Amino acid sequence: MAIEERKRRLTKAARAAGLDALLITHPADIRYMCGFTGSSGALVVAGRRSLLFTDGRYTEQAHAEVWGAKVEIVNGPLLAAVCAWIEAGGAQRCGYDPAHTTVAALGLMRAAVSPGRRRALFQTAGEMVGRQREVKDAAEIATMREAAGMGCALFDEMLQVLTSARSEVEVAVEMEGRARRSGADRMSFETIVAGGPRSALPHAQPTAARLPRRGFVTLDFGVVRHGYCSDMTRSVHMGRVSPEERSVYDFVLEAQTEAIACVAAGVRAGEIDEAARRVLRRAGLDTFFTHSTGHGLGLEIHEQPRIGAKQVQEMKPGMVITIEPGVYLEGRFGVRIEDMVLVTDRGSEVLTTSTKALIEL
Amino acid sequence: MAIEERKRRLTKAARAAGLDALLITHPADIRYMCGFTGSSGALVVAGRRSLLFTDGRYTEQAHAEVWGAKVEIVNGPLLAAVCAWIEAGGAQRCGYDPAHTTVAALGLMRAAVSPGRRRALFQTAGEMVGRQREVKDAAEIATMREAAGMGCALFDEMLQVLTSARSEVEVAVEMEGRARRSGADRMSFETIVAGGPRSALPHAQPTAARLPRRGFVTLDFGVVRHGYCSDMTRSVHMGRVSPEERSVYDFVLEAQTEAIACVAAGVRAGEIDEAARRVLRRAGLDTFFTHSTGHGLGLEIHEQPRIGAKQVQEMKPGMVITIEPGVYLEGRFGVRIEDMVLVTDRGSEVLTTSTKALIEL
Repeated sequence: MAIEERKRRLTKAARAAGLDALLITHPADIRYMCGFTGSSGALVVAGRRSLLFTDGRYTEQAHAEVWGAKVEIVNGPLLAAVCAWIEAGGAQRCGYDPAHTTVAALGLMRAAVSPGRRRALFQTAGEMVGRQREVKDAAEIATMREAAGMGCALFDEMLQVLTSARSEVEVAVEMEGRARRSGADRMSFETIVAGGPRSALPHAQPTAARLPRRGFVTLDFGVVRHGYCSDMTRSVHMGRVSPEERSVYDFVLEAQTEAIACVAAGVRAGEIDEAARRVLRRAGLDTFFTHSTGHGLGLEIHEQPRIGAKQVQEMKPGMVITIEPGVYLEGRFGVRIEDMVLVTDRGSEVLTTSTKALIEL
Repeated sequence: MAIEERKRRLTKAARAAGLDALLITHPADIRYMCGFTGSSGALVVAGRRSLLFTDGRYTEQAHAEVWGAKVEIVNGPLLAAVCAWIEAGGAQRCGYDPAHTTVAALGLMRAAVSPGRRRALFQTAGEMVGRQREVKDAAEIATMREAAGMGCALFDEMLQVLTSARSEVEVAVEMEGRARRSGADRMSFETIVAGGPRSALPHAQPTAARLPRRGFVTLDFGVVRHGYCSDMTRSVHMGRVSPEERSVYDFVLEAQTEAIACVAAGVRAGEIDEAARRVLRRAGLDTFFTHSTGHGLGLEIHEQPRIGAKQVQEMKPGMVITIEPGVYLEGRFGVRIEDMVLVTDRGSEVLTTSTKALIEL
């Protein structure tokens, strides 16, 4: 069972770090370690004991979802109750994740235990669960493949219905409706539909503006399937492209293709970023590529590893990342092409199977 | 201009706390203080100088949105660049918000300045912007009134189309589509549509299950309008109610009405919570009311103040809160009724105008 194996590895990592307990408060980490999907909870793993603490709103849900942990319903402040339990259980050094613990929360944690234990009991433990989540197991890869496939099917459907009679918002709403009716939990982030000059905004929010009669429309979207995110981008063209538009598209596609070709176990994230950037530099377009090349994803839409300039993290088999270079010409147009890519022993497998040929609608 | 007044008050509060600069990193706080809506940014307010730092993805958007602050585009790690700027500017004590700063971020902030300054430069400053945001100004109240009205209009429309032929997901998708086509930025949280026994789950996610032929359906939803959230809940009944269902509904409605009657400037949050709980206690239903009575809302769906048991915070005119008692009978049915309520000098004004009479469809 995946969760048992995850717990085993986590406990081993904790022990190696001299910790006899771990306090896990980040919702995606909690879900990964015990299946609970509620918005309020804390998981304590102490040796062979695992307890999921939550409040009365989630009693029924917690008992239905949680696997491999005992459920404790807390009245009143959750964190204080959890920390008092940790102290009472006799833990000497309890690790917490500094990237998902606020300074205020750490203060509450310390205030909940006896004065003599305040400094020693809680120790930063790095992103122990987060690091484990970077490498997906077989069940996760199967789910992410399915999520990516749902995204591709949705894109193919949308090609049949994109017209300049529809607004960006209408297209975004239509995509969400279709996704959810086909079984998506939700969209993995707010869908970007950016037409004409707005395609030059990398993070455009959909507006009431109609799609252009002639010009690029960038669709950047993802679905969540059983908790796992997909993410893909295509810039399609309404009407005939100009030679300049085609040239920019071709360079972005070449940059994306080169970056994907670079992905393999052992390669550093910065090398993948550079593979995309090099193509655009040769084309004189690198100053218009204003973001990183990609990011890991899974239970969250943005996870480790980051695929950006100078990042030294090495790829491992089982990582799933996006590769999404773009070129943005302010006030004119933009192009971005994004796939999900699984790192394998020998290279990579692209999970996003929709065509990347330039589409004129 | 609202933003000038907000800055003036913030600078005054900072000065009173002995701080000559403030580092603001929470997106809703940044939006409140300068209008920027991007997902990556940091605002520094140092005396009369305000600078919004963001990255290249947001260049165009930042220049279009930001008001009363200079825009700085940063390449590379944002927080390090911001902190180096703060130190170079000669600030002696820069406040940060411990509730929105992770332990890891504080480590990066300290590492970005010279060793001699690490301890002294960054000081916890409480939720300075958050506290200001608790009390809405006239423009904010007007926008929230509009958001609440959009929610009510949507509820009234849905009454025309709710049938047992539709699934929870279909209803949720329909609501989101209608909201966005009518001008909502998005939904303010994931819409809850919970039919039959699932109405006993306070935080149910919509499923593919059809609405019941006979039984409660709880709709808990909100829209975002110009950045501000609405939030309302109604439990409507498909088919005829049983005497027991009607009795529970009436008690929840009485609890909600009593709590609203209690709202006024100077009243403590705990007194409002108790007003609702007292009604349900008398009815022998208090153990089935498993959450707090309400919460503040505004740019975020959950803000201060919390309206829960024993909370001592006093209401102030201009606060906008929800009042949302519920009763949940596991495996059978649940009822929740929620309005948005504006605290006024003399009492309160209910912003949610949809009927609370028991509706049988």
